[in-house]
Amino acid sequence: MSDKDTPPLTGKDLARKPRGFPDKRESLIHAQAGLVETITGVYRQWGFEALETGAFEYADALGKFLPDDDRPNAGVFAIQDDDEQWMALRYDLTAPLARFVAEAGQSLGKPFRRYAAGPVWRNEKPGPGRFREFWQCDADTIGAPGFHADAEMIAMGAEALRAVGMETGEFVIRVNTRRLLNGVLDGVGATQGETRLAILRALDKLDRLGVEGVADLLGEGRMDESGDYTKGAGLGAAEVKRVLAFAQAGADTRAETLENLATATGDTEEGKTGLAELEAIAKALEALGAPEGDVVIDPSVVRGLEYYTGPVYEAELLREVTGEDGKTYRIGSIGGGGRYDDLVARFTGETVPATGFSIGISRLAAAMQIMGETEKLDGPVVVLNFDKEDPSVALQIATELRRAGIRAEAYMGSSGMRPQMKYADRRSSPAAIMVGEDELAKGTVTIKDLEMGALKAKAIKSNEEYREARPGQFEVPRAEMVEAIRKIVEAQK
Amino acid sequence: MSDKDTPPLTGKDLARKPRGFPDKRESLIHAQAGLVETITGVYRQWGFEALETGAFEYADALGKFLPDDDRPNAGVFAIQDDDEQWMALRYDLTAPLARFVAEAGQSLGKPFRRYAAGPVWRNEKPGPGRFREFWQCDADTIGAPGFHADAEMIAMGAEALRAVGMETGEFVIRVNTRRLLNGVLDGVGATQGETRLAILRALDKLDRLGVEGVADLLGEGRMDESGDYTKGAGLGAAEVKRVLAFAQAGADTRAETLENLATATGDTEEGKTGLAELEAIAKALEALGAPEGDVVIDPSVVRGLEYYTGPVYEAELLREVTGEDGKTYRIGSIGGGGRYDDLVARFTGETVPATGFSIGISRLAAAMQIMGETEKLDGPVVVLNFDKEDPSVALQIATELRRAGIRAEAYMGSSGMRPQMKYADRRSSPAAIMVGEDELAKGTVTIKDLEMGALKAKAIKSNEEYREARPGQFEVPRAEMVEAIRKIVEAQK
Repeated sequence: MSDKDTPPLTGKDLARKPRGFPDKRESLIHAQAGLVETITGVYRQWGFEALETGAFEYADALGKFLPDDDRPNAGVFAIQDDDEQWMALRYDLTAPLARFVAEAGQSLGKPFRRYAAGPVWRNEKPGPGRFREFWQCDADTIGAPGFHADAEMIAMGAEALRAVGMETGEFVIRVNTRRLLNGVLDGVGATQGETRLAILRALDKLDRLGVEGVADLLGEGRMDESGDYTKGAGLGAAEVKRVLAFAQAGADTRAETLENLATATGDTEEGKTGLAELEAIAKALEALGAPEGDVVIDPSVVRGLEYYTGPVYEAELLREVTGEDGKTYRIGSIGGGGRYDDLVARFTGETVPATGFSIGISRLAAAMQIMGETEKLDGPVVVLNFDKEDPSVALQIATELRRAGIRAEAYMGSSGMRPQMKYADRRSSPAAIMVGEDELAKGTVTIKDLEMGALKAKAIKSNEEYREARPGQFEVPRAEMVEAIRKIVEAQK
Repeated sequence: MSDKDTPPLTGKDLARKPRGFPDKRESLIHAQAGLVETITGVYRQWGFEALETGAFEYADALGKFLPDDDRPNAGVFAIQDDDEQWMALRYDLTAPLARFVAEAGQSLGKPFRRYAAGPVWRNEKPGPGRFREFWQCDADTIGAPGFHADAEMIAMGAEALRAVGMETGEFVIRVNTRRLLNGVLDGVGATQGETRLAILRALDKLDRLGVEGVADLLGEGRMDESGDYTKGAGLGAAEVKRVLAFAQAGADTRAETLENLATATGDTEEGKTGLAELEAIAKALEALGAPEGDVVIDPSVVRGLEYYTGPVYEAELLREVTGEDGKTYRIGSIGGGGRYDDLVARFTGETVPATGFSIGISRLAAAMQIMGETEKLDGPVVVLNFDKEDPSVALQIATELRRAGIRAEAYMGSSGMRPQMKYADRRSSPAAIMVGEDELAKGTVTIKDLEMGALKAKAIKSNEEYREARPGQFEVPRAEMVEAIRKIVEAQK
């Protein structure tokens, strides 16, 4: 039977969702909304204004800037519109911004400073923890040629991460420029693509192989423990030393790192230009008061998106995250950005200098969830319903509570008293309210303080005793109900 | 040349977006965010909790419930995943909820009360004001068989609309049940599909043709002014009278309407059941304190989505909206909902009674925009930049202002003083700050109050006089800058 003959799914088999599009429950949604509010608040404070574009763009307007991918539609979700033009869901918030700026033309005053928060979609191979839909929160300045505009992005990114609760040492923003690495490669005479690639690959292994291993790979080659031999980049001893000095230029302060880099990159045009970019950024970072520990210059940073033309930055969570399951997680990159002077020029033919920063909201929220830092929210007061035929009393009481500003609901199911009380427990309700025939006749309500009740119940041994004691339960005149509930809610805060 | 040979677009032609996916600027985004916050706030207050699902669902899990459509993929954006299963972007927030509930199974306690806000997508023919992406804000109760749960949805919908600023008379929620109309059709012996359709079409024209015209269409037929003849439904005089009585049952109060309907629908099983549903809803609406003017029973309401099984409700904006362009707009439906007892049963085989309400956020925000009710937000204080080589001073001042809680930015472009001042004006900045060589030497800053400046400038006749007077401009010691700016910002509020 071929795939096409597979019978349609029915019943429970139907109830499934595509991988990479997770459902989100209250505490995660609450955490994510808090991140968006705080981070866009920082962006606004720095003078950016809101602009949002639609989910779809024409595929050719988006362009192909995602890192190389072995999949046919290059990482996007694409669909043909009625007029046969290809549309694709945006893979980031930057490419649609470039389209917007080009379409608006001269009518859009510049600099144009915008922020946006919203979902983006990448058609990657889904896997555990790898989403195909995630939220980003971006800021961009269009029409800003000076490198202090990049510094502003970096300093603002650091402030946004601090605003959501991270401290120095828990995160770092690493800054680099593409020109610097090009300068080094030029400087050691690595003009051929193959050699340049071999050097980049060797540098990428510094963490894993250490200096000696990388030195071998930059030179003749290296035999690993299993006896496998990897041919090296073929650099001479002096060139190997120079590349290693570059890769190890990182120091305690941005000024020291720049000094080390000045030595390592030498006299090439690209190297000098790159160094000047980083020096301008470092100077502006000082003026903006960005702490040394939050922002470092790191020659190893390379960002995956191919539209970057100069400085690039990468925000990383340093904290090793211990989950409630006891396992250790590394979240890694939680954002970044860079300068993209040619992205608008794709449309207009004229270079429009631009730079931006993006924070990965979904990654940050997921990290908070793993660390158990998302908040469990209080539930509503539940008014139990004693009369299935006429639930008016329960509805009236819930209405009265809500009008007094208290979160409340009348029970909407069809179950008896015990499941109704269990429902209130499961909703983390502060209290349940019962109005049976007795209470109606007396003009009272019975209130159960569910937190107090649970505490007291711990000391009770038998079901009989429990029924007798009714822990946390008391009766008040209907007119005093709102105040009694308000006290319980306040006390539980 | 066939379509396939069309050369790729280049340059400015590339800078276009698919129709139906509008870009949104600050005031609209701000209005929409305010609507979401207020409406989800009401939903929370009524005891609902947040749940969000992904943008994509498997197409067969979503099901086909959109109104009939002449387009091949029935109104959704569909794409084949790697494993050749069809996925589609959600067309509403209800169908994915049903999938979630079925997938969660018994582990999800019921009643399950959730709210959600987010974009949905419909692949309809785009046109002016017809979006293909729009935000909805929904609440649903799963596991609620009683019609007071529908009443809760309706009363809460009315409260949400009041919370965003609408008053009685500006909107109405119309309530009906599908069973009622079926009862009327049964009652007049209209068993054949063709006759039923002719009756429905005739009723749909009540607004336009009046009672006599519709009476003709229900009976023999009708000749219009142009001489065209439309064949009627063929009902006898008594039946015509009965159908018209039904269609005109609407009265000043819900109780009166129900009385009229009781007469009009007669003795059919469906009619009685439908009437009992509406009576239960009306009783619960009383207990919930829903004002008569906000919620009416209206036998003409039919909702387009095909998963509804009983009561349906439609929220409509009554206010005729006069745009800033002087034209009159009718927004019409801004939300609605109904009972969908069989939607989860598609997966589980078991009926799970459910009801929900949805508010069209994008439509509401668009209405606010047309009415000129969206807010123009204040811009940031702009610190002009006098030194292109070293912008440190401007950056330091902007940093100082932000740390004092004032929204501020240093100018990031490369233009001279005059365009910088124009930029501050265009951003609706409360003030601009200038620090040239003079000010630096003296330890002062020059502040321009842009609102005051604009007011005073009106009285000035010549450029020369303007330069002389420098309206709204004054100099303060740097140490007094923050307080001076704070006063300007406060005064402009």
